[in-house]
Amino acid sequence: MESLNSFLKYNKQLVEKWIDKYLPPEKSFPPVIHQAMRYSTLAGGKRLRATLVVEASRIYSGNQQHALAVASAIEMLHAYSLIHDDLPAMDDDDLRRGQLTSHKKFGEDLAILAGDALCTYAWQLISDHLPADKVPLIIKVLGRAVGTDGMIGGQVADMHWHQWSVNEYKILRYIHSRKTAALISASLVCGAIIADAGENELKKLTQGGIYLGMEFQIVDDLLDELGDENVVGKKLHKDQDENKLTYPGIYGIESAKIMAEKYAQKAITCFSQLSVNSSRIIEIAQYILTRNK
Amino acid sequence: MESLNSFLKYNKQLVEKWIDKYLPPEKSFPPVIHQAMRYSTLAGGKRLRATLVVEASRIYSGNQQHALAVASAIEMLHAYSLIHDDLPAMDDDDLRRGQLTSHKKFGEDLAILAGDALCTYAWQLISDHLPADKVPLIIKVLGRAVGTDGMIGGQVADMHWHQWSVNEYKILRYIHSRKTAALISASLVCGAIIADAGENELKKLTQGGIYLGMEFQIVDDLLDELGDENVVGKKLHKDQDENKLTYPGIYGIESAKIMAEKYAQKAITCFSQLSVNSSRIIEIAQYILTRNK
Repeated sequence: MESLNSFLKYNKQLVEKWIDKYLPPEKSFPPVIHQAMRYSTLAGGKRLRATLVVEASRIYSGNQQHALAVASAIEMLHAYSLIHDDLPAMDDDDLRRGQLTSHKKFGEDLAILAGDALCTYAWQLISDHLPADKVPLIIKVLGRAVGTDGMIGGQVADMHWHQWSVNEYKILRYIHSRKTAALISASLVCGAIIADAGENELKKLTQGGIYLGMEFQIVDDLLDELGDENVVGKKLHKDQDENKLTYPGIYGIESAKIMAEKYAQKAITCFSQLSVNSSRIIEIAQYILTRNK
Repeated sequence: MESLNSFLKYNKQLVEKWIDKYLPPEKSFPPVIHQAMRYSTLAGGKRLRATLVVEASRIYSGNQQHALAVASAIEMLHAYSLIHDDLPAMDDDDLRRGQLTSHKKFGEDLAILAGDALCTYAWQLISDHLPADKVPLIIKVLGRAVGTDGMIGGQVADMHWHQWSVNEYKILRYIHSRKTAALISASLVCGAIIADAGENELKKLTQGGIYLGMEFQIVDDLLDELGDENVVGKKLHKDQDENKLTYPGIYGIESAKIMAEKYAQKAITCFSQLSVNSSRIIEIAQYILTRNK
């Protein structure tokens, strides 16, 4: 079997080819908004979510073209969320993946509109490219993952938790599970829906995906403390500066590492119980522990 | 037949009842984002778009509950666009319909997120409440109307046209047709799709809706020049201050009035050619000429 590195590289290239095809061409009027949409969505990244869609569909023998459409839509939703998170009124970041953030490059108004456009475009892409009978369930799962009980809810809590009377440990788990893990979990589930996987498989993927996403975000927190700014491609040590809740921040670095490992193990346990061979997804869960960007 | 006023009032109340039901409850965690979503979406307004959905569905004997779901989704998309348009980086408005704009009330970050959440929620609402076979076409029509070839494209041009070498008359028509008319037209078309109206009817409604939307926006431009701030409920005379392109601004007030009337007439001609009784929609086209808010 090819190495995990080749597998990830192959999927990243495949997915990026399709994101590029699906995005509106840069020249379409008005060009500047399409430039902004393409700039952020094609800015690289690991394409973890897209790869999870494609792989979850593949292991249940799903239609690859349908998986690539959903994978592209999810990367657009992810890009929209990053553009808006980086805005001055939110996390106020100048760099993302080693390049200027959208508002630094195009101005704040176009960054807001590029995020809006990507959000709308993602739903259109799904409804245009999937069989009609699959569209409602996929929109339901994804809408929940990026809505106020998912990504947006997590972002709201991340920015405002200190004004609420909440338990720090509980709210931190809420933030990470909604802001990051929900979409990672939905990526696996959508892949399996494309392939008509059964209810029981979807449940295990949902749960395993949440654990995988928690692992991913705790490693992200650790990278903010321990990573190399040139490798990660964004400003680090912002979490402490801004009094953000993080796992290393409230549990300490060593405990956070152990928690990431525990979440990886829980994810792997879920994936091992699937009715199909999920070895690549398991490898991804192991790999995330070691990532340096 | 009841008067147009009673008809509009009845539909406004009906639609608002359903928007209220469909929006997430205020207490759902995290409450502040649901408060912000509800604050802007339930802030009143004429509910013109929603009424057009419901009426276009009714004249072809469509399912009213399906129409109300799409009508609510369209009002959410409209509310999201207003929240983001009012932001400091965009039109920087403090008042909307006589009350504080979202960012003035909740802060800029929550205003951005409330708009984002409404955008996502609208697509979910459609896919959750319509028969699966109608979802893709409705999302296609609506997605186009609010995307970069519709509302967002219009907003981009509205903010940036002065940096482009374009013909002012042409770009003004582009801005109004995309920023306003596209969604008004799509409201009529979606109503008819719900009721399985034929291709030819959809074409006439698309075109008539664009004329109706152009009429609506030219009247809006005129209200900005001639209206009463207390009645309209927002700061007026901003268009001149900000060097915005408007019909009265480049054609003069009298010519703009004549153009609004001509668009109303063109809309009425399209609606008169429908295979069903469209008298209410025709009355709406006449009424818009006389509106004072």
